[in-house]
Amino acid sequence: MSHPLFGPEVREMLAEHDTEGLRSLCDSLHPATVAEVLDDEFTPEQIWEVISPSDLRTQAAIFEYLPTSRQVEMVEGTGRPQVGKLVEKMSHDDRADLLRRLPARVREALLRLVDEADRRDIATLFTYEPGTVGSLMTTDYAWLPPSLTAAEAIDQLRQQAPDRETIYYVYVLGEHCRPPAGGGVATRRLLGIVSLRDLILAPRHAKIGDLMETEFVALKLDDDRKTAAETLARYDFIAMPVVDPDGGMLGIVTHDDVIDVLQQEATEDLQKQAGVGPIEGAYLEARFASVWWNRVKWLSAVFVAQMFTINAMAFFQVKIEAVTVLAIFVPLCLSVGGNTGSQAATLVIRAMALGEVRVADWVRVFRRELLMGTALALSLGALALIRTYFLTPEHLLHRADHLIQLTNTISFAVMGICLWGTILGSMLPIAIQKMGFDPALMSSPIIATLSDVSGIFIFFGVATLFFF
Amino acid sequence: MSHPLFGPEVREMLAEHDTEGLRSLCDSLHPATVAEVLDDEFTPEQIWEVISPSDLRTQAAIFEYLPTSRQVEMVEGTGRPQVGKLVEKMSHDDRADLLRRLPARVREALLRLVDEADRRDIATLFTYEPGTVGSLMTTDYAWLPPSLTAAEAIDQLRQQAPDRETIYYVYVLGEHCRPPAGGGVATRRLLGIVSLRDLILAPRHAKIGDLMETEFVALKLDDDRKTAAETLARYDFIAMPVVDPDGGMLGIVTHDDVIDVLQQEATEDLQKQAGVGPIEGAYLEARFASVWWNRVKWLSAVFVAQMFTINAMAFFQVKIEAVTVLAIFVPLCLSVGGNTGSQAATLVIRAMALGEVRVADWVRVFRRELLMGTALALSLGALALIRTYFLTPEHLLHRADHLIQLTNTISFAVMGICLWGTILGSMLPIAIQKMGFDPALMSSPIIATLSDVSGIFIFFGVATLFFF
Repeated sequence: MSHPLFGPEVREMLAEHDTEGLRSLCDSLHPATVAEVLDDEFTPEQIWEVISPSDLRTQAAIFEYLPTSRQVEMVEGTGRPQVGKLVEKMSHDDRADLLRRLPARVREALLRLVDEADRRDIATLFTYEPGTVGSLMTTDYAWLPPSLTAAEAIDQLRQQAPDRETIYYVYVLGEHCRPPAGGGVATRRLLGIVSLRDLILAPRHAKIGDLMETEFVALKLDDDRKTAAETLARYDFIAMPVVDPDGGMLGIVTHDDVIDVLQQEATEDLQKQAGVGPIEGAYLEARFASVWWNRVKWLSAVFVAQMFTINAMAFFQVKIEAVTVLAIFVPLCLSVGGNTGSQAATLVIRAMALGEVRVADWVRVFRRELLMGTALALSLGALALIRTYFLTPEHLLHRADHLIQLTNTISFAVMGICLWGTILGSMLPIAIQKMGFDPALMSSPIIATLSDVSGIFIFFGVATLFFF
Repeated sequence: MSHPLFGPEVREMLAEHDTEGLRSLCDSLHPATVAEVLDDEFTPEQIWEVISPSDLRTQAAIFEYLPTSRQVEMVEGTGRPQVGKLVEKMSHDDRADLLRRLPARVREALLRLVDEADRRDIATLFTYEPGTVGSLMTTDYAWLPPSLTAAEAIDQLRQQAPDRETIYYVYVLGEHCRPPAGGGVATRRLLGIVSLRDLILAPRHAKIGDLMETEFVALKLDDDRKTAAETLARYDFIAMPVVDPDGGMLGIVTHDDVIDVLQQEATEDLQKQAGVGPIEGAYLEARFASVWWNRVKWLSAVFVAQMFTINAMAFFQVKIEAVTVLAIFVPLCLSVGGNTGSQAATLVIRAMALGEVRVADWVRVFRRELLMGTALALSLGALALIRTYFLTPEHLLHRADHLIQLTNTISFAVMGICLWGTILGSMLPIAIQKMGFDPALMSSPIIATLSDVSGIFIFFGVATLFFF
C-alpha cells in the first residue's frame, strides 16, 4: 500500500526533467497516495514541478489530498496562472476550505484568476459559519427534472458526471422556489432522490418522478456538522441533501467529509476530556499563542477552584499538627476520588454523546454507579488496609497504638472517597446536561478538583472518628 | 426527521390488527427510522408483529438497523421459522455479528433454518478474529469477468444487484486461484475495480478489462480494523476489497462499517485516556462484572503506584512537623502536575494516533512543550503568588515572617511542577511508543500519579531552599 521506491524515483525524474515520466506516474497512482508521498518528502515548489505535467483534473485531485496547510504554502509561493484553473477543478467544498485559510491578499489575487460562475459559488459557500452543515456542504451534485425516463436520465448523467463529486445519488428537482427576500439565487425544490442503482435496475421507460424516493432525510444549512455526521452514519447514506426552509436544494454533504468530521470530533472530545479548549489544526502546526490560551484558560480555572483545598486543609490544621502522619496519606487518598471520578464521568459523557444514556435515565445510572462505586471501594479499601497495616514504618507514628487507628482511617477514607468520586463523576455530567450545558464540560481535571476539595472533608471526617 | 406520531399510530394499528397499514408504513419509511422508533417503544414480540406483514427484504432491512442486543432478544424469544429466511436476506456481515452474540443453543437452532449456501458463508465469516478486517468484511459484493462489455456488464448487474449491499464498485475477477492447502473454497483473483460511474460513462462496447482500475488498494484478512478504517478514510472510498495472500478476492469492507469502527475507536480512545479498559457494548447494557474488572484493574494499578506518595511524604515528615502550613498547600501544588501533564499527554497521544507526530519528532515536541510549560508556569505561578501572599490567614503561620518564605515556596513549586508535568506528559507517550507499546497507555491517571510522586520532591525541595 505504501510505495517505498516512489520518492527516489520522483527525485530522479525531477533531476532529469522527465515530464513524461512524472505525468504517467501521477496518472497511474491514486491521488491520495501521490499526495501523501509528496507531502512527506518534497517542497511546495517541487510538488508543483511533479504535478504540472499532468492534466488539470489530476492536478486538482492530488492537490485536494494535500493537507490544507500545505495547499496554502503552495498557493502563496506561486505566481502561476494555472492555480486559478486548478481551483476551478477542485471539489467545491475543498476549495472553499482552502480559500478560508488563505491571507486576504492572496485570496483576492487568486479569485481574480477564477471564472465568474466559480467565483459566485465560492462566495456563497464562504459565508457559512464554521461548524455548520453549510461549511461542510458541496454544491457539486447531479440533478435531474422528474419528467425524464430512466434511459434519458442515464444519458444526461453521462454528460454531467465528469464534473460531479458523486453521481450515486441523483437529486430530482422541480420548479424554482420563490427567490429569497434579500436577493440572491432562487433554489429549485427538492422533490425526491433516486440512486444510480435504482436507475440502472429500472425499466428504460420508467419516469424518474415515479422511481424517486420521496420520503428522504434532509439537512438544514445551520445544523451542527456533528448532527449531520451522526445522521448520515445512522442511515448509512453515501450523501445527504441540504435544503433551505422552503425545501429548495442547496447542496449535499458526502460520506468522506463526514468521516473527517467524525475524526475531528473525536479529537475534540479527547481534548475536552483532558480540559483543553479545542485546538485548531495539527499539533505541531497550531499557533503557539492560541494553544497557550486554550490550555491556560482551563488550567487557571481549575487551579483557582483547586485553591479551595487550602481552605479545606487549613480547617483541619490542628489535627494535622496533632497527628502529622495523617498529612502523609493525604495525596494517596485524594487521588482515588480523581481517578474513579474521571472514569465514571468519561463513561457517562460518552454514553450520552452516543445517545445510550439520557437525562431521564439518571436513576438507572445512579443505581448502577452506586453498586459499582461500592464494588470498587471494597477492592481499593482492601489494598489500602494491607499497605497501611503492614507497611507503615513505626517511626512515622507518634504512638505505637496509632497503627490501628491509622489503618482504619485510611481504609475507610479510601472507600468513602472512592464511592463519592464515582457518584460525583457519574451524576455531574447528567446534571449539567439537564441544565442545558455540554456534559463534556465535566472534564477529568474538573471532576478531580471537585473530588479533591470534598475528599479532604471525607478524609479528616473519618480521621476524627478514629483519632479524636 | 423524527416521527413523533409514528409510535401512537403503530400502537393503534397493532390493536386493530391492521396488517395492511403496518405493511405500508414499514415500506414507506427508511428502515433506520422504523428501527429507531420500534427499538425505543416496543417489545420484541410487538416488533415482530409490526414488521411481519412486510416482505422479507424490508423485514431484514429494519431488523439490521436494530441494536444487536435487541436482535438477540428477538431471535431468542421466537420459534418463528421466518427467522431463518430473514437471516438469509440480511447483509452478510451483520448476520455474522448477530450469530456471534447468540447463545450456542439458539445459534444451532437458527442455522438449521438457513439454507446450505448461506450456512457455509456464515461459517466462513464466523472464523475471523474480532477486531480484524475479516470480522468487518461482507461477502456480498458484485463481480464480473473482464471479458464483458460495459453494456453487458450493466445487464449482468441488473440481475445481481438486488442482493448486493453495494454495486457502486464492481470487482473484476479472473480465474480461480489454486485452492488453499487445507481444503476450503478456491478464490478468484482480483484483477481490477470498475466503478458503476465509469461503467455508465464508458462507450457501450468498451471491455471491462480495459475500463477497470488495476492500481487498487486492498486489505488483508488479518489487518487491524482500525487500519482498514483509516485507509478507507484517507482514500475517500465507498468500499475496499479484501484479498488473500495470492490476491484472491475474499470480500469487501464498506464505508458504513468503517464509520461504525471509527465511532467505536473514538469511544475506546476516550476510555483509555481515562484509564478504563475498553468496555464492550452500551454503557447501561454492558455486563457489570466485566465493567468492574475493566475499571478496577487500572484503578488498582494506579493506586498501588500512587502509594509511593506515602514514601515521598514520609521522607519529609520532619519538615511537615516543623512547618505544618506546608502540608496545607500540598494538594493544590500536586494537582498542577496532573492537570498540565494530562493536557500535554492527551495532545501528544492524539497527534501520534493521527500521524501528525512521530517518534523522530521528539525534539520538536520537547522544544515546543518546554516553551509551553514555561508560559503556563508563569501564568499559574502568578496566580499562586497572589493567592498565597494576600489570602493566607495569619493564624496558619507559626511566625509572621514565614509569609514571604511560604509565598516563594508555593509560587516556585507551582512553576516547577507545572513545567515538569508538561515535559513528563509530552515525553512519556513518545518514549512508550519508541519502546514499542501503545502510547495511549499513558492515560491521565497514570501521568497524574507519576507527577504526584515526583511533585512531592519538587515541592519539598523548593521548601527546603526557602525554609530550612
